[in-house]
Amino acid sequence: MTLHCATGNAGKLREFHALAANRNVNFEMLPEFSRLPPCEETGATFEQNAVLKAGYYSLHASGLLFADDSGLEVEALGGGPGVRSARFAGPRASDEANNRLLLERLRGVSDRRARFVCVIALARAGKVVRTFHGAVEGFILDEPRGANGFGYDPLFFYAPFGCSFGEASPECKLAVSHRGQALRAMLDFLGPGL
Amino acid sequence: MTLHCATGNAGKLREFHALAANRNVNFEMLPEFSRLPPCEETGATFEQNAVLKAGYYSLHASGLLFADDSGLEVEALGGGPGVRSARFAGPRASDEANNRLLLERLRGVSDRRARFVCVIALARAGKVVRTFHGAVEGFILDEPRGANGFGYDPLFFYAPFGCSFGEASPECKLAVSHRGQALRAMLDFLGPGL
Repeated sequence: MTLHCATGNAGKLREFHALAANRNVNFEMLPEFSRLPPCEETGATFEQNAVLKAGYYSLHASGLLFADDSGLEVEALGGGPGVRSARFAGPRASDEANNRLLLERLRGVSDRRARFVCVIALARAGKVVRTFHGAVEGFILDEPRGANGFGYDPLFFYAPFGCSFGEASPECKLAVSHRGQALRAMLDFLGPGL
Repeated sequence: MTLHCATGNAGKLREFHALAANRNVNFEMLPEFSRLPPCEETGATFEQNAVLKAGYYSLHASGLLFADDSGLEVEALGGGPGVRSARFAGPRASDEANNRLLLERLRGVSDRRARFVCVIALARAGKVVRTFHGAVEGFILDEPRGANGFGYDPLFFYAPFGCSFGEASPECKLAVSHRGQALRAMLDFLGPGL
């Protein structure tokens, strides 16, 4: 089975492909993705943004398309940066800039609890079929650790692994991560054998 | 660094080696292991058995030696089979026989909560230096799933993975498992860089 996806994020795309490698499914970027005006992510929640993106891009896809909205919710920041995770340090901010800003905001803060959240919306011809959720709990480190993953992964300490998502292997991260959970929930919904 | 270990369990040995592959450490079976009369595991707890084994075998080792005692604690069985996990269905019982008996005992039981527990004791010349603990929570399935791992792994559903330890990759199982936790705690204790 082939499913279209819509993301400009290379890290997400890598994870989509890694998960597909073990399943009877093929994730393909929407061919028109880079030529379309980007979808404005004006939602107040991951769910709203995922729905906006899947609805918009699926108008340009044949068949089913999914979009992912995800980010980091830090307890001591009242759930921030949340939907602003990718642009925390400004529009088109680098992962490094976002990580640096997060460490600044948490300087001297002892409550380091945080969670990664992912919502995937599956849509066809502009209509959302269903959304799928994933979340994983961790702690924000004092400095980045590891070169794997992307985004806030090097700062996200996952206690069961005893290391950060930046240190974990891509396969093991995906086995427990917010995005892995949401992707597997979508595949389970689409049918057995996927 | 080389550490001697003492186990007759091929599954445990595989996991010791897999963990060592990513670390600056080398686990070697105690050369005399198979020629020595086996250590009687008469303890009432994993801790006691790990201490008994490490104390006994380290008398025959040069330098540090560690031994692992581990098993499955099932909520509905009052923590059993516990230290009797390996011999649940009788002395020298196969994994299959133990798994079958566990399913029989849990037939019609809705509370499927269970945890794997591991205690590793590190000893030198008969004296225990320290013990290290690991535990991981899961649920007992209605039937075995997956061909990886050993022991009760195919029946142990680990929610963050969305699959059983028998279905998880060896690397990802070790990243979260009771044994992985205890081994990493021992290496952390032995010093940085391991």
